Amino acid sequence: MKSRAAVAFEAGKPLQIVELDVAPPRKGEVLVRITHTALCHTDAFTLSGEDPEGVFPAVLGHEGAGVVVEVGEGVTSVAPGDHVIPLYTAECGECLFCRSGKTNLCVAVRATQGKGVMPDGTTRFSYEGRPVHHYMGCSTFSEYTVVAEVSLAKVNPESNPEHVCLLGCGVTTGIGAVHNTARVQAGDSVAVFGLGAIGLAVIQGAVQARAGRIIAIDTNPSKFALATRMGATDCVNPKDHDRPIQQVIVEMTEWGVDHSFECIGNVQVMRAALECAHRGWGQSVIIGVAGAGQEISTRPFQLVTGRRWMGTAFGGVKGRSQLPGMVEDAMRGDIDLAPFVTHTLPLERINEAFDLMHEGKSIRAVIHY
Amino acid sequence: MKSRAAVAFEAGKPLQIVELDVAPPRKGEVLVRITHTALCHTDAFTLSGEDPEGVFPAVLGHEGAGVVVEVGEGVTSVAPGDHVIPLYTAECGECLFCRSGKTNLCVAVRATQGKGVMPDGTTRFSYEGRPVHHYMGCSTFSEYTVVAEVSLAKVNPESNPEHVCLLGCGVTTGIGAVHNTARVQAGDSVAVFGLGAIGLAVIQGAVQARAGRIIAIDTNPSKFALATRMGATDCVNPKDHDRPIQQVIVEMTEWGVDHSFECIGNVQVMRAALECAHRGWGQSVIIGVAGAGQEISTRPFQLVTGRRWMGTAFGGVKGRSQLPGMVEDAMRGDIDLAPFVTHTLPLERINEAFDLMHEGKSIRAVIHY
Repeated sequence: MKSRAAVAFEAGKPLQIVELDVAPPRKGEVLVRITHTALCHTDAFTLSGEDPEGVFPAVLGHEGAGVVVEVGEGVTSVAPGDHVIPLYTAECGECLFCRSGKTNLCVAVRATQGKGVMPDGTTRFSYEGRPVHHYMGCSTFSEYTVVAEVSLAKVNPESNPEHVCLLGCGVTTGIGAVHNTARVQAGDSVAVFGLGAIGLAVIQGAVQARAGRIIAIDTNPSKFALATRMGATDCVNPKDHDRPIQQVIVEMTEWGVDHSFECIGNVQVMRAALECAHRGWGQSVIIGVAGAGQEISTRPFQLVTGRRWMGTAFGGVKGRSQLPGMVEDAMRGDIDLAPFVTHTLPLERINEAFDLMHEGKSIRAVIHY
Repeated sequence: MKSRAAVAFEAGKPLQIVELDVAPPRKGEVLVRITHTALCHTDAFTLSGEDPEGVFPAVLGHEGAGVVVEVGEGVTSVAPGDHVIPLYTAECGECLFCRSGKTNLCVAVRATQGKGVMPDGTTRFSYEGRPVHHYMGCSTFSEYTVVAEVSLAKVNPESNPEHVCLLGCGVTTGIGAVHNTARVQAGDSVAVFGLGAIGLAVIQGAVQARAGRIIAIDTNPSKFALATRMGATDCVNPKDHDRPIQQVIVEMTEWGVDHSFECIGNVQVMRAALECAHRGWGQSVIIGVAGAGQEISTRPFQLVTGRRWMGTAFGGVKGRSQLPGMVEDAMRGDIDLAPFVTHTLPLERINEAFDLMHEGKSIRAVIHY
């Protein structure tokens, strides 16, 4: 079948809107009509060519919502008409990782997903007879996309897809990091570095956890109003201080914060986030994705005196088990998604959405097909 | 009073055996007659001059056992004749950290201890009328030493001081790291980097926790016999492999170990220990003390894919609460201290004990007064 899509033909070039050919879903696969997709810094990172795993041409996009059109052989957990969110972190329920009860990092489709192909090693997308790669197991920048069954969360059909598509990545990552990775407790203090969608979602998660002080940090003070509206108790601009930001936060809190979250992908900020964690028990969670080859560093004394350094992918959330519940949370208002959607655009204007993101003007621009 | 002591008059020089003057204990202080002391790499590190906090002249030594001789004003928890182990990690029970229930890093005497003085800012040691500094709140290289009450664990007088002095630092650190910091569970896999006293104690702790595979790693294969006797299931010499040791360990275990412990103080080994931890949930605990200014580093991807980096001081053990129980464990044989004591020497030969340690010939040399 034919599908409108925004295709990344080359690194560093704008996406091109074309009509792709999409092959039917094979065994264990599902054809989904995407109704809404947001875009995220990871898409921009891959498009830039800096992602060492990036392959081209490809259909990017991994933060979407849609409806099942057709299922391949053996698919039982979803049926045509089901509302779904594609998952870049699959949940097979059977691998060592799924069975561990300790992590959401399912390996069922990991190897092929990283290479931009379906689990059988081929692509369902082609253009003018040549294969076009998949991306993160989702490829939500095509109206019709094929996704592995284990990479689909079935969600309430009454939910608003323009909002809940955001649960496909950023918002879930931030909220999940608070609950699953850091396990913030009532009264704990929190520092959030970077007030994009993930950082704002961390603030929402911290409010849900009834954190005490929530310190929001960004070099762009235009972010502070929304951060405060979501529940930040303090906003700090590192540019307002002539000493390292970690020192500023430690001074504000006497010994540092119970939990810090890096939501940017900057290795220097990751260090600052660790070093503003509380002596004795403070934890720092890396959420942002750093550039290829970049490294984090600190003095080991920071860890020997009780700080813990950790990271999270998709907020530790098991997509098929837990995302339906988060959609219900959003429908009840316990997750407030509306403020994240600062722009809505048709597919044809998707490159403008990238520009808005790069200029720091959007939290999330949602594409309507 | 007079006391025989091995004094570090200058960085980088051997200790000198002299008769010090020791002033009586003041308020909240206790005079202890040390009967046995071991020495540890931290003493050697400070003596070398590389420790930026090192002050001279000083009475080093922090792994000892002794008997209370006299108590200062207000001291109620110990009395003359009590058998005690001095603690370089105090436990006041009242500070923010003691009350947190999350850490053993009491701050009651931290600031003054780091400067080599008693909590009132003065020293009890002097030589030829000039003050001599304390060290780590213990100074066990003097037969008579003055220690803060909060820095003394009262232990069973029937215990063997030649053995239980080792619980003043290395053995407790290793065993405590397993139980308090990593929280190793039955069946977990463990990698131990460095088979000195701390590494061997980690192996004993892992056996207590009924770990599954226990992989012992050292570049000195003469350590393997004792490691195996204590419970290591595999011994690996990095020199036998032409690829990075973390890769070797991951290949041995498919996805890495559940817990790794760095017991050396080498920042490259700290990185290897982190990177051989299991994807999804592996933890790496830094125990060794790195040189001044040295930094650890890794790619943040290691943390984002589920590894956790942490550290421990004194194994997370609260000395006054928990050390008495560990002495009982040693008396019952649940901690086997005898194999650690490879040499015993009189105080006069303490510099030989340093030589044995530097040459890798001793696990612990215990000094008898």
